[in-house]
Amino acid sequence: MDGCRIAVIGATGAVGSVFLSILEERSFPATEVRLCASERSWGRKLTVLGKEGTVEEATPELLSDVDLVFVCAGSGISREIGPLAVENGAAVVDKSSAFRMDPDVPLVIPEINGDDLETHRGIVSVPNCSTAPLAMTLKPLMGVNAIERVVVSTYQSVSGTGAAAVEELRNQSASSLDNGPIEPSEYPHQIAFNVLPHVETFEHNGYTTEEMKMVNETRKILHEPDLRISATCVRVPVMVGHSEAVHIDFEEPVGPGEIREALSDVPGLKVVDDPAMNRYPMPVDAEGEDDVFVGRIRQDVSNPRGVAMWLVTDNLRKGAALNGIQIAEEMMSRGLVSTPARRG
Amino acid sequence: MDGCRIAVIGATGAVGSVFLSILEERSFPATEVRLCASERSWGRKLTVLGKEGTVEEATPELLSDVDLVFVCAGSGISREIGPLAVENGAAVVDKSSAFRMDPDVPLVIPEINGDDLETHRGIVSVPNCSTAPLAMTLKPLMGVNAIERVVVSTYQSVSGTGAAAVEELRNQSASSLDNGPIEPSEYPHQIAFNVLPHVETFEHNGYTTEEMKMVNETRKILHEPDLRISATCVRVPVMVGHSEAVHIDFEEPVGPGEIREALSDVPGLKVVDDPAMNRYPMPVDAEGEDDVFVGRIRQDVSNPRGVAMWLVTDNLRKGAALNGIQIAEEMMSRGLVSTPARRG
Repeated sequence: MDGCRIAVIGATGAVGSVFLSILEERSFPATEVRLCASERSWGRKLTVLGKEGTVEEATPELLSDVDLVFVCAGSGISREIGPLAVENGAAVVDKSSAFRMDPDVPLVIPEINGDDLETHRGIVSVPNCSTAPLAMTLKPLMGVNAIERVVVSTYQSVSGTGAAAVEELRNQSASSLDNGPIEPSEYPHQIAFNVLPHVETFEHNGYTTEEMKMVNETRKILHEPDLRISATCVRVPVMVGHSEAVHIDFEEPVGPGEIREALSDVPGLKVVDDPAMNRYPMPVDAEGEDDVFVGRIRQDVSNPRGVAMWLVTDNLRKGAALNGIQIAEEMMSRGLVSTPARRG
Repeated sequence: MDGCRIAVIGATGAVGSVFLSILEERSFPATEVRLCASERSWGRKLTVLGKEGTVEEATPELLSDVDLVFVCAGSGISREIGPLAVENGAAVVDKSSAFRMDPDVPLVIPEINGDDLETHRGIVSVPNCSTAPLAMTLKPLMGVNAIERVVVSTYQSVSGTGAAAVEELRNQSASSLDNGPIEPSEYPHQIAFNVLPHVETFEHNGYTTEEMKMVNETRKILHEPDLRISATCVRVPVMVGHSEAVHIDFEEPVGPGEIREALSDVPGLKVVDDPAMNRYPMPVDAEGEDDVFVGRIRQDVSNPRGVAMWLVTDNLRKGAALNGIQIAEEMMSRGLVSTPARRG
């Protein structure tokens, strides 16, 4: 694979930090890594791929000196940096929701719809951290039988909000154990020893933006524009790892054995399902792992055509940084990034 | 209302302690309160209804000296004490699952099926702590339209397991914040900053006993033996308060406005549903309250005949102790307890 010059925007954040360590784990073929973040981090030194780098401003000049830009910050930053990077000749892999539903922007999980990358016009979006594990699980099941409807409830960790929210959960937990005061800042209410049925913002239909992302992004990734999905997204006091209780109705009767078989040997999925031995996926086991873990697979007692299951994934990895790097690897192997060697 | 002599079995546990304080809050007409618990608590002094009492052994003699026995301990204790108390002439209100599905034992939420008390043969069961809020919510909705199916995912607090589990969550949380060791004892895995898709024990169908209680007890309480329900029960690191994400399908289209109206002014229910103001039910707000709180009421985007919502209740109160005391009050007002005054 050709080497390429990359920039990481949001290098000091929760996803950015994981991103840098995954670059290293996977020996990503970067010939140069530029690190960018907000002003308060400029000048900070970070080691990536064995070399020390300095956090700097994402200027148009910097963006024109790289081939690939990873944006690991909020939607606002993506809307600003994304088009600017494309104008300056770079390809953009964007973690945020800014462009995900844009018909001109591929929304990609390489294991599922890598072919969608072929039509990219500069920007490629990484799916939402709760959507990715759900889509990863639904895709192989579509081969078992047509899916009629999906009902999902999430148990999302605070790292999905960012590094400050992890700090807030730590601080509030310590204070609560000590009967001290609780001062919410990242969330509208206490998160320590509490659950919030509120992830992101509320829309007019009573769903949150996070819940509607799960509906709309899953449809786009799976190329199933009419797939029926309903979600309830809930924040729980967990540091890392998003969990999901999923009920899937098929058009015809399907048994848990078929489901288990269909989910075995799928790249990126791992079945952990031995209740008799108390083995099932949990956030503390998923942290730092690349796979989507699936367990509690059972025939739905309320529907002979239904199956229930439980998913857990590291939201910072397959739910964000890892999937972003896998997209870049796939783009490079397909010759879709204009590297110095290719421009040759 | 006649006064009566009562015994509380399990008076020192998580539910027992709440039970004693609710007796006081509601000025329960007890002429005498005997306090029982396991041997390690014998001799301990507790104040109840303004008088000091001593924790003692639940002997046949003690049971024959009271009119009403509340059993707030595990199923094993209930199986031992329940029949013994009935033999000795007392009525039994049992918190455990021991007799709930016995066709001779009424399983009662007074607001829903108080009439079922009329056929009691000595023992009356209190429903499971996740079942009670669900049944309380479904009952008024059955008047809106026939319910076709219910899919529910729970977020259950550790106090449902008992006082030792609350201590375990506190200790593990402190240790985890301090990077110390985690030693699970009440649960098979770490509960601090984790979620466990495992409440009680696994059955052959892959569901847990807790999940099947939600199915079977809801059917019994609502007198709907064929109601289709599927549940995923999950333990979360919350001290008190069980939450539930509920998706209800009706036989005909039903709107969220109708649902909200049907749930308003129902004794024991309180609608808290103003997303624009970040108002929705949460465990930290439900703790110490008697109501089942309902919010996030919305049309299901995956089914025009469906509605989604979010419930929270104090599992120690409406989910256990409060409902038990309400049963006793209802039995007394119906003249179903053989009190000294009634025996004349």
